[in-house]
Amino acid sequence: MNLPLAIERLIEEFTRLPGIGVKTAQRLAFFVIESDDGILNLSEAIVRAKREIKYCSICYNFSEEELCPICKSQKRDRSTICVVEEPKDILSIEKTKEYHGLYHVLHGAISPLEGIGPEDIKIRELISRLADSDVKEIIVATNPTIEGEATSVYLSKLISQFDILVTRIAHGIPVGSGIEYADEITMTKALEGRRKLR
Amino acid sequence: MNLPLAIERLIEEFTRLPGIGVKTAQRLAFFVIESDDGILNLSEAIVRAKREIKYCSICYNFSEEELCPICKSQKRDRSTICVVEEPKDILSIEKTKEYHGLYHVLHGAISPLEGIGPEDIKIRELISRLADSDVKEIIVATNPTIEGEATSVYLSKLISQFDILVTRIAHGIPVGSGIEYADEITMTKALEGRRKLR
Repeated sequence: MNLPLAIERLIEEFTRLPGIGVKTAQRLAFFVIESDDGILNLSEAIVRAKREIKYCSICYNFSEEELCPICKSQKRDRSTICVVEEPKDILSIEKTKEYHGLYHVLHGAISPLEGIGPEDIKIRELISRLADSDVKEIIVATNPTIEGEATSVYLSKLISQFDILVTRIAHGIPVGSGIEYADEITMTKALEGRRKLR
Repeated sequence: MNLPLAIERLIEEFTRLPGIGVKTAQRLAFFVIESDDGILNLSEAIVRAKREIKYCSICYNFSEEELCPICKSQKRDRSTICVVEEPKDILSIEKTKEYHGLYHVLHGAISPLEGIGPEDIKIRELISRLADSDVKEIIVATNPTIEGEATSVYLSKLISQFDILVTRIAHGIPVGSGIEYADEITMTKALEGRRKLR
């Protein structure tokens, strides 16, 4: 059966979203068509988010204004910057309520295979934040992938020109998981990162 | 961290879709904001589908016009009507390319527990199609659930007033699956529905 064009089109647009296959897209499209008009809010919310959300001019996190709430806050510790790949990574870190410093979003990681070099992500913008600043520590919280590690190494070399401590978040066995389930690389990182108990 | 309002709103709207939890909604919202403007097509496609898609006035399938392509087609066998719960069920049946009759979409199934009676779904509309028609067989393809079975039984009684054969699709072991994985009810149905080999 050929579906009506408007449905085909809607399915196609849903499949462009990450993790949405054809089957799910079909389900979503059929739901949208059969649901009441409240669903039009989704359409409006997309347009509004695209229009209103920009990047903070300091840390490149999402923001509705020139500066994001974290960069504007008087309560944050301005001596520490945590470097992440994507804005969503900030969410995970903020959830801990343990970190009170600032952030810097790179919007990607160095990946020679994909042709993404240091100049393609917000590294220059990070470096320009460091000159004449009170920053004492940079915590590199890029992902534990080849790209994240490469970015981490690159950053630590680049920042060695400043008198700033560069640290990397720990990798190891996730809390609540068993050692038997750990893959080799995670286990290696867990052994390498071992700490003296007392 | 409090996310900007426009992002919170977008996440909330995504969670209204079936099978989309908060985590996935967050991922989708962040993707939408970071993607190029092509994503606005999704917003347009939703509006367009809601505006243009109505129900066929005969079979209640989705349609862009008064009659759906199947009801309009001269090639379909008008002596058979396959009754389904939802428009998406038609997709599965059409994919087989084995069925050439017409359809009737009930838009639900009888469910006393949820307060859905025969008058709440398109049963009256089905019966009015049968009078003065050439219909010789009704294939009941409602789901093998309590509601689908109840609807099936109700329909077969109701249609007994006409000189029309009422059949039910077969339930049994899915092709490609092993007997060892079959649940008791499916296995019972498979035994009940056994056929003579020769």
